[in-house]
Amino acid sequence: MEKVNIILVGFGRVGRAFFDLVKEKYDYCRKKYDLHLELRSIIRKKGTILLSSTRKILSPAYFATEDLDNLADWVSAITLEDLLEEFDKGVVVDCTPTDIVTGDPSFTIMKESLEKGWHVVTASKGALVLKSAELRELAQARNLMIRASGATAAALPTLDVGLFSLAGAEILAIEGILNGTSNYILTRMAEGLTYKKALEEAQHKGIAEPNPAYDVEGWDTAAKMVLIANQVLGTDIKLSEVTVRGIKGISREVVEKALRVGKILKLFGKCYRENYEAPWKVEVGLALLDQNHPLSKVNGSNKGIIFYTDTMGWISVIGGKSDPRGAAAALLKDIINIYRKKQ
Amino acid sequence: MEKVNIILVGFGRVGRAFFDLVKEKYDYCRKKYDLHLELRSIIRKKGTILLSSTRKILSPAYFATEDLDNLADWVSAITLEDLLEEFDKGVVVDCTPTDIVTGDPSFTIMKESLEKGWHVVTASKGALVLKSAELRELAQARNLMIRASGATAAALPTLDVGLFSLAGAEILAIEGILNGTSNYILTRMAEGLTYKKALEEAQHKGIAEPNPAYDVEGWDTAAKMVLIANQVLGTDIKLSEVTVRGIKGISREVVEKALRVGKILKLFGKCYRENYEAPWKVEVGLALLDQNHPLSKVNGSNKGIIFYTDTMGWISVIGGKSDPRGAAAALLKDIINIYRKKQ
Repeated sequence: MEKVNIILVGFGRVGRAFFDLVKEKYDYCRKKYDLHLELRSIIRKKGTILLSSTRKILSPAYFATEDLDNLADWVSAITLEDLLEEFDKGVVVDCTPTDIVTGDPSFTIMKESLEKGWHVVTASKGALVLKSAELRELAQARNLMIRASGATAAALPTLDVGLFSLAGAEILAIEGILNGTSNYILTRMAEGLTYKKALEEAQHKGIAEPNPAYDVEGWDTAAKMVLIANQVLGTDIKLSEVTVRGIKGISREVVEKALRVGKILKLFGKCYRENYEAPWKVEVGLALLDQNHPLSKVNGSNKGIIFYTDTMGWISVIGGKSDPRGAAAALLKDIINIYRKKQ
Repeated sequence: MEKVNIILVGFGRVGRAFFDLVKEKYDYCRKKYDLHLELRSIIRKKGTILLSSTRKILSPAYFATEDLDNLADWVSAITLEDLLEEFDKGVVVDCTPTDIVTGDPSFTIMKESLEKGWHVVTASKGALVLKSAELRELAQARNLMIRASGATAAALPTLDVGLFSLAGAEILAIEGILNGTSNYILTRMAEGLTYKKALEEAQHKGIAEPNPAYDVEGWDTAAKMVLIANQVLGTDIKLSEVTVRGIKGISREVVEKALRVGKILKLFGKCYRENYEAPWKVEVGLALLDQNHPLSKVNGSNKGIIFYTDTMGWISVIGGKSDPRGAAAALLKDIINIYRKKQ
């Protein structure tokens, strides 16, 4: 039996889903993996709450996230640093919002956590697309792990497949449809809607954010692709080095022209190099896919990734819930895979 | 740096491809994973050959498998048991032919290897579909690993995804198109060929065996599905408990009828249970897929698998070379993942 102390930072949609999931899966993880996942504390803007154990939060008083909101136990005097020293080392779960300009608060959280000997599992992209090498070195020097499945397309396994399922194979290129909002808009436009109508529909359905710029301008795809490349290929690509073209305001004519020549228009992230000596590049932009391209049928808010290899051919992975619960499931997976025994 | 001693048993198409791959990837594995993969010996029906190290077989004299065939160094007096005691413990790579009636020689090889403290990586299905629980217990008691990626659809990652990428999620059902020969025949029949013509074409292309019974009668799919279920779900399903219907001699009318109603006919392996308390069942037979089923576009000799989960939605994995080199790559992956450090 292993006790895993968890500190959750960030209590937005993904943080809340993670809180719910840890409660739901507490017994399952004990039985299946012999791991006791003990959520010790939550830190958010309004303060910090101490939870003695997951058992306690399984009790009725703490059952719903709303109940937690209303408790008077949130205090602002306790910092992450205090908690990292208070509890036996475990894992910090970072659910703070992605900021691709400063990388914070994620970067500071990850750095502090690693320096104090804690593993990090993150759903936030900013720090890793800006300062990936620095954080990786910090972790390696201390024999700690940074896992970011939750930041690279929620429940769609991208990093695991690249790192684990393709071990021993050389990756020649990676392609992905990694942004649900953009893919939904393009799918609906191919069915006859204008960009404006398709975006409104996506917003109405909760797929697109009220401000969709980050998604439709291609930055979300770019950040995910950089993160995947840096983890899987060991590169140190910066977001600023990526050529990014989004789908914002795309006209129906462009989509219709693609259909007329039997192609499918997708917002595509690509990672490739010209030859074995050349550096890896990441690009994001519209791509015209053949009908028989393995990702051409990835429609709606669905996502997919394909790896091209030297010894295993190509392998595509498609699906995976992309809602907060899917992202939370990816965070949980990463924690389990850090602590479980090999089998 | 870790030295990994390897004994290869079986020197047919997959064994030879593995031999070639270990040479090809020796330096890559040293650099990337800090593992020295040292092939110490090959055992086959005609005898045993001792190789001092992979470095030695990299020298011209041993370069090609044909050269190896012609050497006079094959001796029949050295048994697997001798080798397991001679060398420091490592991993036995089992590339012997699948026998789903007796499970041998695979079962004996695996049992002996585990008893002497060696890990096992196998491309052979027989032992694991007949005596999975017995072998698993043997391994667990000694803290050893059995990995069988090479036996469950070559380079298509099935076991890794189920065990690793879905950690923490409960699997509700698994479906797969796992047999290249049957899928090729059905694909070509949907394009207008008769069963006989499609089979002949598959044989001509080297996709189907001269005796295709094992594939077209559904047993290969059944064996793979049992293996996946037993490893991923921890069940102990026996091949004899599986309902198996193949595609042998299927008429064009059946295929045409499917097309007329807009469906796609596939040889499908399924693993499911009626409810949470019910036992898991494996079934193999023809399935009529909707056009939008994630596996409906898996055509030709291609393969695919889909996992349905409670927290991550569905995840499909498609592709992966299914030739001997793909199977060898899966064996190599398993070895690396046994020995590499977590990251």
